[in-house]
Amino acid sequence: MHVTRDELRDFAARAFVRVGLPESDACIIGELMAEAEFQGSEGHGIMRMNHYIRRIQAGGVNPKPNIRVVEERAAMALVDGDNGMGHLVMKRATGIAIEKARTCGVAWVGSQHSNHAGPASLYPRMALEHGMVALYFAVGNANHLPPWGGLDMLLSTNPIAVAIPTHEEPPVVLDMATTVAAYGKVKTKAQRGETMPVGWMIDRQGNPLTDPKRSAEGLLLPIGGYKGYGLALVFGLLAGTLNGAAMGKDVIDFNADDVTPTNTGQAICVIDPAAFGDPLEFKKRVDVVVRDLRASERMPGVERIWLPGEQSHLKKLEAQRNGTPIAPALQKSLDTLADSLGILRLSGGTP
Amino acid sequence: MHVTRDELRDFAARAFVRVGLPESDACIIGELMAEAEFQGSEGHGIMRMNHYIRRIQAGGVNPKPNIRVVEERAAMALVDGDNGMGHLVMKRATGIAIEKARTCGVAWVGSQHSNHAGPASLYPRMALEHGMVALYFAVGNANHLPPWGGLDMLLSTNPIAVAIPTHEEPPVVLDMATTVAAYGKVKTKAQRGETMPVGWMIDRQGNPLTDPKRSAEGLLLPIGGYKGYGLALVFGLLAGTLNGAAMGKDVIDFNADDVTPTNTGQAICVIDPAAFGDPLEFKKRVDVVVRDLRASERMPGVERIWLPGEQSHLKKLEAQRNGTPIAPALQKSLDTLADSLGILRLSGGTP
Repeated sequence: MHVTRDELRDFAARAFVRVGLPESDACIIGELMAEAEFQGSEGHGIMRMNHYIRRIQAGGVNPKPNIRVVEERAAMALVDGDNGMGHLVMKRATGIAIEKARTCGVAWVGSQHSNHAGPASLYPRMALEHGMVALYFAVGNANHLPPWGGLDMLLSTNPIAVAIPTHEEPPVVLDMATTVAAYGKVKTKAQRGETMPVGWMIDRQGNPLTDPKRSAEGLLLPIGGYKGYGLALVFGLLAGTLNGAAMGKDVIDFNADDVTPTNTGQAICVIDPAAFGDPLEFKKRVDVVVRDLRASERMPGVERIWLPGEQSHLKKLEAQRNGTPIAPALQKSLDTLADSLGILRLSGGTP
Repeated sequence: MHVTRDELRDFAARAFVRVGLPESDACIIGELMAEAEFQGSEGHGIMRMNHYIRRIQAGGVNPKPNIRVVEERAAMALVDGDNGMGHLVMKRATGIAIEKARTCGVAWVGSQHSNHAGPASLYPRMALEHGMVALYFAVGNANHLPPWGGLDMLLSTNPIAVAIPTHEEPPVVLDMATTVAAYGKVKTKAQRGETMPVGWMIDRQGNPLTDPKRSAEGLLLPIGGYKGYGLALVFGLLAGTLNGAAMGKDVIDFNADDVTPTNTGQAICVIDPAAFGDPLEFKKRVDVVVRDLRASERMPGVERIWLPGEQSHLKKLEAQRNGTPIAPALQKSLDTLADSLGILRLSGGTP
């Protein structure tokens, strides 16, 4: 089945309204989940629907949050998400950061009492529409990463995303977990019945773990060994601890626990290139770097040199033409969800 | 030979004064080079002396720069280093960022027309003295990294450093190249006559390269494959391109070229935790995370779990007690430099 962006958004919105969210909030989340799916972030897209709804129904997420700024200076704010859906919290936070960056040149907005907000790149991408650069950091919602040399999973895959505007080229958008694989990718492999490559996870004896269904027994590996551990730690401290949000032992495994508020922390830093000089010249200089990299000499057997965000860009163009595919197993689970909520299915039918 | 911090600083200052730097500037650089050596960043410490002096003498670096702010908003500045030593430029930039963060909560200061500034962590560490958090990004001064799948070395090892204050624990200080090994480490291996581990570099056929004396034929490998390439790219765009500094093809190989200004770009982002709540509580929360990680269960054979910056901290304590060791080959080259400049040797003697 292929679905349009509007079908995805409307389906998600129907579900969120049914479990008590205001219609405007439900539409915002639906829009961002459709965006995630369209840019190819399927591990953080519509497949999270069942889980989101389950936690709202269980009381783990507040359907009617009072999202508000609790600390503020000229170039920063701390947003209390009141345990609402992370999409709502981080959309608000990003909007504040963009406004503050417009006057101050740069702004940093953190969140506390937030929740899972979809793929990291969604929020820095919002700054691109204003010709701005943005960096995003988040504490993941389950600890799968031990410190380097350790066995206790005290860290999450804490993602980093950076978006940089261009003039004619697709924007440069990096969106990466600080582990070799994000846990969402492990989940996608499990759902598709595929095995994982060696290097994604190890078991507690240090042996490679390739069956994604056994992922609960394993540890994710950080990129670059102790370097990835260091990145997960420092960006976790900035996105979590600095904001008074969960980090380390405080992190709630939202896969295993539907009722405890996660107190998720995130941070977005927005930079206005206009503060540094002519913003058009900046974007043109980024284009030059992009083109130099793309046109450079390739290793034998390599067909193309990709820029970060370029594959997402092409996936989005393709999805805008033909809709985005929904795998049969996912469609079935979404149909079951729709039927249990008594709403129209994503495919438009009823049981 | 073991030397004290003052001996290192004074030796470096003598050399810089002899090639035309004002005494106050020479002392600042000497202080920072001694600091680098004491924290164990020997690849970016006193071993760079010959190279720095050679470029100043050749006219590649301006001994009397007019370092000034060329763009400014409440929470940002762009500093033109006037092709002065990077240590001077980034010390100034960091001071500005700290002052702006004190009022705005966060500040971002970029540099252009700067030069190599020593180890990345020097500058975010300055924020620690003010109880602040800082992030530092820089474009390296020689391209050794191709894009993922490529052979053209269009990127440098573009380092990332992050410093986070603690209450009773050593500060958390991450300082890492986005490649598996920094080029400074390759140089150290070469100087010591050691071989490199497999995984640091490959040759143009994709085979492991382990002889550091052949490093000019090889390519550094990024951490996490395409992820490290992405990090080197985006932080290079932020530290270089955004500031109107060199990036990609524009980067001058300062090992091979003594005369062309490098137009090095760097960026420092300082965050004042006091803007987010009680700063002491923040530092105590960081302590808790640090202690939880250190005390966590270890893999068989692992003696200790290290926090980023902890080994540097211990090296500094040890160096403060007993001085820092200078390897015979390095001492010899520094003696030769001293003799050629007609200044007192590091060891205090004369030829």
